[in-house]
Amino acid sequence: MTILNPTNINQNVRNLEYAVRGPLVTRALELAKELNNGAEKPFKSVIRANIGDCHAMQQKPLTFFRQIISCATYPSMLDNPDIPEDVKERVNSLLDACGGRSVGAYSESCGLEIVRRHCADYIKQRDKLDQDVDWQNIFLTTGASEVVKVTMSLVNQSSNGKPVGVMIPIPQYPLYSATLCELGMHQVNYYLNEQENWSLNVEELERAYGEAEDQCEIKVIVVINPGNPTGAVLSKRNIIEVVEFAQRHNIMILADEVYQHNIWAEGASFTSFRSAMAEINAKLELVSMMSASKGYMGECGLRGGYGELYNFPLDVRAILYKLLSARLCCSVLGQITMSCVVKPPKIGDPSYEKYEAETKQVLSNLKSKAKLVADTFNSIEGMQCNEVAGAMYAFPRLSLPKKAIDEALAKNQQPDFFYAWQLLESTGVCIVPGSGFGQAPNTYHFRTTILPPPDVFQDMMNRMKSFHQQFLARYS
Amino acid sequence: MTILNPTNINQNVRNLEYAVRGPLVTRALELAKELNNGAEKPFKSVIRANIGDCHAMQQKPLTFFRQIISCATYPSMLDNPDIPEDVKERVNSLLDACGGRSVGAYSESCGLEIVRRHCADYIKQRDKLDQDVDWQNIFLTTGASEVVKVTMSLVNQSSNGKPVGVMIPIPQYPLYSATLCELGMHQVNYYLNEQENWSLNVEELERAYGEAEDQCEIKVIVVINPGNPTGAVLSKRNIIEVVEFAQRHNIMILADEVYQHNIWAEGASFTSFRSAMAEINAKLELVSMMSASKGYMGECGLRGGYGELYNFPLDVRAILYKLLSARLCCSVLGQITMSCVVKPPKIGDPSYEKYEAETKQVLSNLKSKAKLVADTFNSIEGMQCNEVAGAMYAFPRLSLPKKAIDEALAKNQQPDFFYAWQLLESTGVCIVPGSGFGQAPNTYHFRTTILPPPDVFQDMMNRMKSFHQQFLARYS
Repeated sequence: MTILNPTNINQNVRNLEYAVRGPLVTRALELAKELNNGAEKPFKSVIRANIGDCHAMQQKPLTFFRQIISCATYPSMLDNPDIPEDVKERVNSLLDACGGRSVGAYSESCGLEIVRRHCADYIKQRDKLDQDVDWQNIFLTTGASEVVKVTMSLVNQSSNGKPVGVMIPIPQYPLYSATLCELGMHQVNYYLNEQENWSLNVEELERAYGEAEDQCEIKVIVVINPGNPTGAVLSKRNIIEVVEFAQRHNIMILADEVYQHNIWAEGASFTSFRSAMAEINAKLELVSMMSASKGYMGECGLRGGYGELYNFPLDVRAILYKLLSARLCCSVLGQITMSCVVKPPKIGDPSYEKYEAETKQVLSNLKSKAKLVADTFNSIEGMQCNEVAGAMYAFPRLSLPKKAIDEALAKNQQPDFFYAWQLLESTGVCIVPGSGFGQAPNTYHFRTTILPPPDVFQDMMNRMKSFHQQFLARYS
Repeated sequence: MTILNPTNINQNVRNLEYAVRGPLVTRALELAKELNNGAEKPFKSVIRANIGDCHAMQQKPLTFFRQIISCATYPSMLDNPDIPEDVKERVNSLLDACGGRSVGAYSESCGLEIVRRHCADYIKQRDKLDQDVDWQNIFLTTGASEVVKVTMSLVNQSSNGKPVGVMIPIPQYPLYSATLCELGMHQVNYYLNEQENWSLNVEELERAYGEAEDQCEIKVIVVINPGNPTGAVLSKRNIIEVVEFAQRHNIMILADEVYQHNIWAEGASFTSFRSAMAEINAKLELVSMMSASKGYMGECGLRGGYGELYNFPLDVRAILYKLLSARLCCSVLGQITMSCVVKPPKIGDPSYEKYEAETKQVLSNLKSKAKLVADTFNSIEGMQCNEVAGAMYAFPRLSLPKKAIDEALAKNQQPDFFYAWQLLESTGVCIVPGSGFGQAPNTYHFRTTILPPPDVFQDMMNRMKSFHQQFLARYS
């Protein structure tokens, strides 16, 4: 007899799901080990396209970033003549801000002031603002995930005994559903319009709000732009409509803008919620988040991120920052990574040319794969894929034969999970079924990243195409 | 009119307190800035003895650690002939475990398998076990704080509609009270016995349990050993009594053992809960935690930590690990720091001598300050301080004059806060009032770290002694 068992622990924790790291991923790891141990498989390698993990897919770290982090950790390296002057300067200014000039000292709870100022300058430039951005509205975090958790925890109180409701897009990134489940909050789904390139439609927001109003007290709308898993990029017009919707209903906005550097479609550009709100002088509260894990740097393992508060009352900000103080601070090396993200070398700096060449290489690879993935999927019978306008994912729709659906349901599996599992077992390609992100009833999808290196990616496309044809043949 | 205000947000978050980073610390930062700007003060420098932040207090990072972290970040450095062979080997084995051989790839949610194995080997050696420790029971975290948060979240469900109760020592480290407050859990105080060197008494545990039983469903007892803020080190006999208490009441144990390397008293030694439980074959659930922030390494800013589950049902472990997966992973460089903590150079390794000399220096400094602090405080009229047997803090008792207490209460301040504030304003020394940790009613204390370097520490002792005498003279 144990004290703890699955029924007497927190059922919210028991029930939460995070498909990006679910059973398919566990199986993919096992398969890779089996291959390593010489097992016979119908494939030579496992390709993990389940998670936006750039470096794991052979993307090379940017030299500028790594020199700074490495020298800040072990300052004796600064004597090395190979280290460029701009790296030395940055390292020295960052160390001046650290207690005892060591990255091993705690920073302030919200992060080093100097890095918060770098972020503020970045936002000012990005949004072409005349006025300075208040660095005190920026707090540094362990990846962007922490921004979601603290924001949700902050607002989690209703006035009417019903749970707090949070509107999230469907499909969504499952961090949202997992966090809401853990905190006992009510998930209010609004559906993105697949027929129109996963666009966000205000009538749908009103429908979702109206239908959920009785069950919860809606306090937040989450928007992911560029979209994960959809790859859609919102227009400024569309963003302003969301802001006006939030104003009408007096709810705050959580803008997940971690893919702001990943725009691929011709003519598309990133518009921040902050700049759209400024344009119409909207006064409602916004939390916007950014990460060091995505973009062209892809430093996922270093866990850098920030949140920016906009239009927040100072007394509420103080309470949020007090909450952050109880976890002391996020990784100082993660903070330094964030400094590199928002303040890269400028033209004329010794590190500029190398930095520019490295980032261009990454971005152009991603851009061509963004096109290749949609073209390939659209060339396959029974698959339909919207343009991958931004981010790092495609989310194609599968028309599954009835026989396959029946067999899946008989096994008590979601049909797209059933499909993904067979894909993995027969080709070694690991993707995430659409049911992990949410999708319209009776539709089936999967998410794949576009991160594997070009030759592996082409191989993956080939494996998927021939698997799909065999799957259709088998179940038709 | 804003959407959010202090009354409509989460009142648990609003109410939580974390004194280690409270208003005194904010004021200390301001004073330091004022001094820098040339302001006239009755002191020349601010001394921050409020937080266990070793490097901020000029403690030097260990070379072995920094070489490994730095080379793992920027592997070109491995070509440098100054880098010892054992550092190169470790870096290569760690990078082999990283996706794409980059610390920028996400690790598994529970951390890199190789580092979890290093931790398991460490525990086996530390506790002189015959059997291997199961590395799969170890999960790597963002400092030890994250272990507390996920454990509390995991067990936060009661069967009778009452809140879940957690027994914590008083005085305690305020992370516990803050986490319980945030999660809406019930804090059950058991008092440590100041008269007997802050010992832990089972009758007191029974009293606390019995009195709280009606108000909550008690599921966990937290023990901090070596003690923060008390500096006490528990005997094996005492630990076994706690285990038997927990067995009697069917509650799990959360053992905060982050100061296991910091033992100062002659004849004292660290006994882990794990080994005590093994000795009496106790089968209840234990979570033990360790950190890279304390010990002799003091790498607070790198945010390394681990939790070990002991006697956990596998299905509950799986649920906890699923919860961890939603935050992806903790900093890979923090994980690598943890590898250095638990697997330092051995005799004969190229890095051994330097490592040994550096750690001895840190430990012998801390040991002499541990003695100095208690001796100094005990030489002051109206102060009483127990032996600092372990950890990095002293928690002396203040006998405050009635006039001072009355003046504090008239100002709506805790008397020890009133004392600490005046100490800061007149001497620049920043400590944390006992009320931030909890203390027996009508007693007053403060916590100071023993971290400032020896000359600064002596200066700090002098400032505190003369302030205290003036304070007594003023209010007597």
